[in-house]
Amino acid sequence: MTEKKFSLGLDFGTNSVRALIVDVENGEEIGSCVYNYRRGEDGVILDEKDPNFARQDPKDYWEGMEASIQGALREARDKKSFRAEGIVGIGIDTTGSTLLPVDEDGLPLSFQEEFKNNPAAMVWLWKDHTSFEEAALITARAKEDEIDYTKYSGGIYSSEWFFSKILHLAKVAPEVFRAAASFVEHCDLMPALLVGDTKPQNIKRSRCAAGHKAMFNREWGGLPAEQFFCRVDEKLKGIRDKLYQETYTADVKVGGLSKEWAEKLSLSAGVSVSVGAFDAHMGAVGAGIKPGTLVKIMGTSTCDTMIAPPETLKVSIEGICGQVEGSIIPGFVGLEAGQSAVGDIFAWYRDQLRWPVENILSRTSFASSLDIKKLMEETKDLSYEILTEKAKSLRAGQSGLLALDWLNGNRTILVDPNLTGQIIGLTLQTRPEEIFLALIESTAFGAKVIMDRISEYGIDIEEVITCGGLAERNPLLMQVYADIIGKPIKISRSAQTCALGAAMFGAVAAGHYPRVEDAQGVMGGLKSTVYYPREESMAVYSRLFKLYKTLHDSLGTKNFSGDLYPVMKELLKIKREVMSKC
Amino acid sequence: MTEKKFSLGLDFGTNSVRALIVDVENGEEIGSCVYNYRRGEDGVILDEKDPNFARQDPKDYWEGMEASIQGALREARDKKSFRAEGIVGIGIDTTGSTLLPVDEDGLPLSFQEEFKNNPAAMVWLWKDHTSFEEAALITARAKEDEIDYTKYSGGIYSSEWFFSKILHLAKVAPEVFRAAASFVEHCDLMPALLVGDTKPQNIKRSRCAAGHKAMFNREWGGLPAEQFFCRVDEKLKGIRDKLYQETYTADVKVGGLSKEWAEKLSLSAGVSVSVGAFDAHMGAVGAGIKPGTLVKIMGTSTCDTMIAPPETLKVSIEGICGQVEGSIIPGFVGLEAGQSAVGDIFAWYRDQLRWPVENILSRTSFASSLDIKKLMEETKDLSYEILTEKAKSLRAGQSGLLALDWLNGNRTILVDPNLTGQIIGLTLQTRPEEIFLALIESTAFGAKVIMDRISEYGIDIEEVITCGGLAERNPLLMQVYADIIGKPIKISRSAQTCALGAAMFGAVAAGHYPRVEDAQGVMGGLKSTVYYPREESMAVYSRLFKLYKTLHDSLGTKNFSGDLYPVMKELLKIKREVMSKC
Repeated sequence: MTEKKFSLGLDFGTNSVRALIVDVENGEEIGSCVYNYRRGEDGVILDEKDPNFARQDPKDYWEGMEASIQGALREARDKKSFRAEGIVGIGIDTTGSTLLPVDEDGLPLSFQEEFKNNPAAMVWLWKDHTSFEEAALITARAKEDEIDYTKYSGGIYSSEWFFSKILHLAKVAPEVFRAAASFVEHCDLMPALLVGDTKPQNIKRSRCAAGHKAMFNREWGGLPAEQFFCRVDEKLKGIRDKLYQETYTADVKVGGLSKEWAEKLSLSAGVSVSVGAFDAHMGAVGAGIKPGTLVKIMGTSTCDTMIAPPETLKVSIEGICGQVEGSIIPGFVGLEAGQSAVGDIFAWYRDQLRWPVENILSRTSFASSLDIKKLMEETKDLSYEILTEKAKSLRAGQSGLLALDWLNGNRTILVDPNLTGQIIGLTLQTRPEEIFLALIESTAFGAKVIMDRISEYGIDIEEVITCGGLAERNPLLMQVYADIIGKPIKISRSAQTCALGAAMFGAVAAGHYPRVEDAQGVMGGLKSTVYYPREESMAVYSRLFKLYKTLHDSLGTKNFSGDLYPVMKELLKIKREVMSKC
Repeated sequence: MTEKKFSLGLDFGTNSVRALIVDVENGEEIGSCVYNYRRGEDGVILDEKDPNFARQDPKDYWEGMEASIQGALREARDKKSFRAEGIVGIGIDTTGSTLLPVDEDGLPLSFQEEFKNNPAAMVWLWKDHTSFEEAALITARAKEDEIDYTKYSGGIYSSEWFFSKILHLAKVAPEVFRAAASFVEHCDLMPALLVGDTKPQNIKRSRCAAGHKAMFNREWGGLPAEQFFCRVDEKLKGIRDKLYQETYTADVKVGGLSKEWAEKLSLSAGVSVSVGAFDAHMGAVGAGIKPGTLVKIMGTSTCDTMIAPPETLKVSIEGICGQVEGSIIPGFVGLEAGQSAVGDIFAWYRDQLRWPVENILSRTSFASSLDIKKLMEETKDLSYEILTEKAKSLRAGQSGLLALDWLNGNRTILVDPNLTGQIIGLTLQTRPEEIFLALIESTAFGAKVIMDRISEYGIDIEEVITCGGLAERNPLLMQVYADIIGKPIKISRSAQTCALGAAMFGAVAAGHYPRVEDAQGVMGGLKSTVYYPREESMAVYSRLFKLYKTLHDSLGTKNFSGDLYPVMKELLKIKREVMSKC
């Protein structure tokens, strides 16, 4: 009997890091551990005065990496088949653009005494939106240039991205900016740390991060030209020299595990560490992405990814957030799109219904017999449960409602954060479960708009694989999505597709598989549950989708030429027709 | 010292009847009593299977009239100044079109053994909507005729109105239809009953009811022509002969109190009884309507009334529900407009927030310590209180929300029941009190649209007087209305303007005043509280109103040519501006 081999995936999320140990021959999850960051609120350092502010203390990454791997190893050791020496590779994904200003050794400036309590010297978390003015400026300058450097990033540079943050940092904390030898993505730093060489010039930068968030593209020779940055702001003069010319796909080996970390983790030195990438992209790999397959990672927001051979996609798809060669699977163009809020919308609505618990019940005569805090906790899941239970018995079109899923703006295909949510069709008889279902439907309509846009560019979507908490927990949601999208929806077998994808790349970097597709074939898989579209709902939803598109285009695009008058009428007509069949 | 004189107003509402005894020299309310109808649910007979169904048992009117007057007399007798012999007149208002099929003596057919449990032989309450098909038919036929008989009724004949109901009755209960010697409005029957002569041919029909609900107009010689009815449906052949050629304004005396009723009520026989009218119209009189004054009766829905000299108003105002000479004040054209839901919208939203009490709390671990029914009762007012408290600190434009107040369709100016409510501007940060305020604002915007339409026709609105429960109880609502309408809002002194208006007409019929305007001058009045528009809010609201009008026109009218794209943008812009000033 040969020794079993394993790969370790590390998934750095917004609030925690997960380590996952996987059998490279069958994808079996042998050990897993989540480490919650300790600094700030749920691991995020906030600023009461500025809702756009979101930083992180890099110490949490150091401590979290060590602790989560040790935890996963502890769990794995309970399995007879496991021996730590069997671990051949380590892959890493993180959020992004999650940025650190670093010194000449590649260590966070916040580790230095001088900057230790300076939030500008810490991690600028992906969801830090303090740089919105800088983002608008970069977008504007890109439009004036001969080359539109944003063309593969949906045409609009985001406040969440690399250079917006660097410029804002330069403005608000010039001393930190000056002290920074380089700026690194979280997903670039962690592999470098494990192999024991974080010198900025030696760090193997992720193609995924560079292409999606830093306008890196071979078409214009890597990062944008020096002149472009100077036109954006003189402060960015020379920024290219602090950065990189090369980027790497995640199948590339960064190096072997350093002696120092091998000892810390009780692993063998020299274990292959692969180049990092973003969570959604590794998640897509873990979920089984391949040409023709759209992978939908569903959580608070969604990330939709596809891959296409470079020869079939020579133009940029309008309104798609990102289009980068090699960002997901080497050799393919990785497409990234997404909705800025999905689970967040349902949580918002659930909290509308929990608002009375906190704000009204406490003033009734029953207040003394209630533990409001406990009640809030209890109603968190229960509210979903009951809403879902009641919404389940509603038929498509029965409520007469239609919503726009823009409560956090629209990422794809309108690329416009300045849009808001809408509900139409309300009557005095409208019930909460109907609103809940309309919100679910709105996110599915939003998903269909993205798919239609991709299809318009000749990329066929043959199947949809979902993963993430929502997909696993909510059959109603999945069924509505199938009915609206009109395609069967499958669910990835693993609940940890990001960490699993990272582990797949670890196995490839280790040479265990020649290509990540081979790792996918063996280590990945689907659940047996498939949601098939229901004929009757599909027919109604295709009528509702037309109305959704009318609202979408009239409120979300300039110069809409259609007529809105029929929207309410048609909703009522559908409602009456559906009711008459009940 | 001369004996004091009093007038008695009777206000028959949907669920109860109120008697009010008023000093004719100063309007002092001497005695009052409400009698709740006993049959059906809250006095309304419903049909579980048909939400459009709403009937009433006329026995409640007989019993209620007697009991409420006796109750008011009992209360009045506690006052030293009062003697029952001082009562000189009685005026009556009712809901409408609230219709009874009657026999040759003018008594309800449901009093006959043959029809006693037949709902078609009972009262067809104003809000009975079973006749919607007949209403559509009458509207369609009116458009084909040389004369559009609906032109002074907003151009669309309603399912709530006189002939829709008669035709529906003819179809569903031909035996009742055949047995009916006539059809009378509730407000016509009660005065006739008090004077002891209900013979249909002797009943003095109300101008108000006939003009607003039965297409009665001098322009075409009273009721529509026989041929018109035949074209609508052969069943209506001869209907004119069962009805009337003459109608009367409410200052006209029907006769003296009959001996029978004088005995029942311990009043003097011969007390003057005036012609009846609808509640909202008498309410307007009680509130102090005069040329240039818009009276707004605010409750579950609203009724807006104005009067104008006939010479200034020779055309029909587009979209206004009714325009009838003498319907409010003799000698003037009475204008009636209104919003199909106002208080009902707030109640709807309150109940969205109470839904969790009933549906979620009962499944928590605290369920056993809660009395859900009691909690529902307690949270009824409390929810309003807390929402109002929180909404009070919001500034105009701060929420970024905008709503359309069409949750029960739009009565004025679109005259379209097939419209629905809408909320736009939702974000993940939107809070319930913001939605509550947006709903309040939406009803005020709707009110402004009505006022603007009236003004367009050259009728100046110099002041606004409100009355009704909402006006009395809700300072926030009144302030928002003042800010949005941009005019001071006054509140009628009496909380019972309908009964007070009826009492004013009673005093005129008794000859105590030559004209009802004289009675108004003495018996009416305003509260000292006036809501003045606040400059800063006005400025923001005038921007929001433009957006409201864009939504209103694009979703409510055909061939809208404007652009909706700026709506969400402008809402966000206003929000940012307002927030930056906080």
